[in-house]
Amino acid sequence: MNAFALPPMDSAAFRAGIQRVVDRVNTEETRNLAFISPDLAPLMDSVIALMSGGKRLRPAFCYWGWRAVALEPDLIAHHEAVLEAAAGLEFLQSCALIHDDVMDGSDTRRGLPAAHRVFEKMHDQSQWVGQAPIFGIGAAILLGDLCLAWADQVFLAAPLPIEALQRAKPIYDLMRTELMAGQYLDLLEQARSNTSLERARTVVRYKSAKYTIERPLHLGAALAGASDVAMQAFSRYGLALGEAFQLRDDVLGVFGDPQETGKPAGDDIREGKRTVMVSLAYAHATPAEQATMTELLGKPDLDEHDVATAREILSSTGALAQTEVLIEQGISSAYDALNNAPVSEEGRSALADLIEASTRRAT
Amino acid sequence: MNAFALPPMDSAAFRAGIQRVVDRVNTEETRNLAFISPDLAPLMDSVIALMSGGKRLRPAFCYWGWRAVALEPDLIAHHEAVLEAAAGLEFLQSCALIHDDVMDGSDTRRGLPAAHRVFEKMHDQSQWVGQAPIFGIGAAILLGDLCLAWADQVFLAAPLPIEALQRAKPIYDLMRTELMAGQYLDLLEQARSNTSLERARTVVRYKSAKYTIERPLHLGAALAGASDVAMQAFSRYGLALGEAFQLRDDVLGVFGDPQETGKPAGDDIREGKRTVMVSLAYAHATPAEQATMTELLGKPDLDEHDVATAREILSSTGALAQTEVLIEQGISSAYDALNNAPVSEEGRSALADLIEASTRRAT
Repeated sequence: MNAFALPPMDSAAFRAGIQRVVDRVNTEETRNLAFISPDLAPLMDSVIALMSGGKRLRPAFCYWGWRAVALEPDLIAHHEAVLEAAAGLEFLQSCALIHDDVMDGSDTRRGLPAAHRVFEKMHDQSQWVGQAPIFGIGAAILLGDLCLAWADQVFLAAPLPIEALQRAKPIYDLMRTELMAGQYLDLLEQARSNTSLERARTVVRYKSAKYTIERPLHLGAALAGASDVAMQAFSRYGLALGEAFQLRDDVLGVFGDPQETGKPAGDDIREGKRTVMVSLAYAHATPAEQATMTELLGKPDLDEHDVATAREILSSTGALAQTEVLIEQGISSAYDALNNAPVSEEGRSALADLIEASTRRAT
Repeated sequence: MNAFALPPMDSAAFRAGIQRVVDRVNTEETRNLAFISPDLAPLMDSVIALMSGGKRLRPAFCYWGWRAVALEPDLIAHHEAVLEAAAGLEFLQSCALIHDDVMDGSDTRRGLPAAHRVFEKMHDQSQWVGQAPIFGIGAAILLGDLCLAWADQVFLAAPLPIEALQRAKPIYDLMRTELMAGQYLDLLEQARSNTSLERARTVVRYKSAKYTIERPLHLGAALAGASDVAMQAFSRYGLALGEAFQLRDDVLGVFGDPQETGKPAGDDIREGKRTVMVSLAYAHATPAEQATMTELLGKPDLDEHDVATAREILSSTGALAQTEVLIEQGISSAYDALNNAPVSEEGRSALADLIEASTRRAT
């Protein structure tokens, strides 16, 4: 038995595998909620719509964190079970997106109305009493809570040896705390109008690099019972790639094509996101440009002209170019870490593909 | 070894035991968050303040669900560990309260400012950019998410045999789903201006009876490896007592002393809560009284005179008296179930005390 006896796992096959688990869980939870009340159906409709999209990056890092270091006898025995555990991370991500859209007041997600807007509209159309936006926020908070609960439910229900799950659970716990902490720091930096590069990088580290890449890899590696050396290699790869991933996302949040991002053009400017790219712009802008940026960041009625102005400042100050350099450096560090990591050749190849998938210009 | 060799466990000793675990977890998480950033300190301050109060009912039902049916050799061996698991439920309750206060727009909780108001005030006083209420809501969503995550973290980290925790986890999962579903139905009935008694009772069943009493008992019983007969007895006791508990809470929410409830007088009327008592009032009110109730329920600037009017209608229609009868019936059914339950005499006595503690007139 060797790695090549496993099903080939390109990104399409992987996404299909995760979707099968997601669909099965959503079918089960649809039944659980229907047993309580038919009025709960809109909650599941909203989760199912949201979870039909997405790149499945966190499950992919978890799966490959396992497959790249697992012992040969475990590879075929546990392949399906690790896919099931990894799919749990997609529910955690659904919670993060649903709650994030409430906090940012976003209208859209993956090209669809954000969950809180769906429930706001339901309230409006039904001509219910009270304020529709408040109802929308309440429903979305609860929907995110359900997804947060289902995430560990799915992860821990995977038919893996109990000692494997016990090794992974403390990492899972740390990951959730880091995610929520990173999200809070993100809110705080927006509110404080932060222009500090260091503080912007702390947000990136917890909200993205650890949550999206390092901890999912560690979870998979813990399921496999990996060595400390492998864990440390995954940290180096994960933190470097995770920063590059978030910086690419930041660039797309201002310069991206709405068709690709599923968000309106310049949405990060409208939300006042205090990204690393924005910090770099402040560091190099004239006082007049700084004043303009401060006016545009978080402007609720930001128009196309405003987006163009913000793009111009981010370009002319060199912030965009510097961000691209940081992305290249992160990618390069991730490759270095990967080349020296104690992983199978199949795993090295898949993790190299994931470097490209998580940092390419079009999403 | 018998039950009497265990530490005596009156409600003060129990609360002190839970508080020790809560304090230890909060100290650990304070350290975890401080490692990420000193800016996270206000999150922990808020959790610690909230968790200094409360009746610890859910941990108590979990603990006694275990102690009432556990085998003798397990009683002393696992007593401390079951206290630790039970304390996890207090973190789940913290999540429910923090998110509930956001959804209801409540100003106070346990006599202190609600979490979202604490962060709103921090934003105001710091003169940060953006809207203070939005920042408050965002911070409270994340704080509730942290508590939801810490709840299963604490429950599953209890040093119990792994097979005991594996028996309990599916019940824990079901409980979370039922809680969030019940909360959503509660929001929905407020929005739909529900006057149906049946729908009000469905909300009570999931939001309160199952979440507060039946499932915590089942969790404890599952930790002990209890029989199906014991599980069914706990369902009968828990659902009957749970309804009585919520109906008492509904009466206090309109007629209670703010000093006792930690909430302003008539807060449930201001929030437009569609309780069983309110449904009973609609069923017996004149059209003029119905119109008045509809006007008062959810009125944001409800004053003392309005509260007095609502109280008068709830009294004169007999809704208050009928609610008291339903409470007595629930208590009586809970005693019947308890008398026939296959539990230790010590457990029967403690569960009888909990009937009183969870339904008495002053909280």
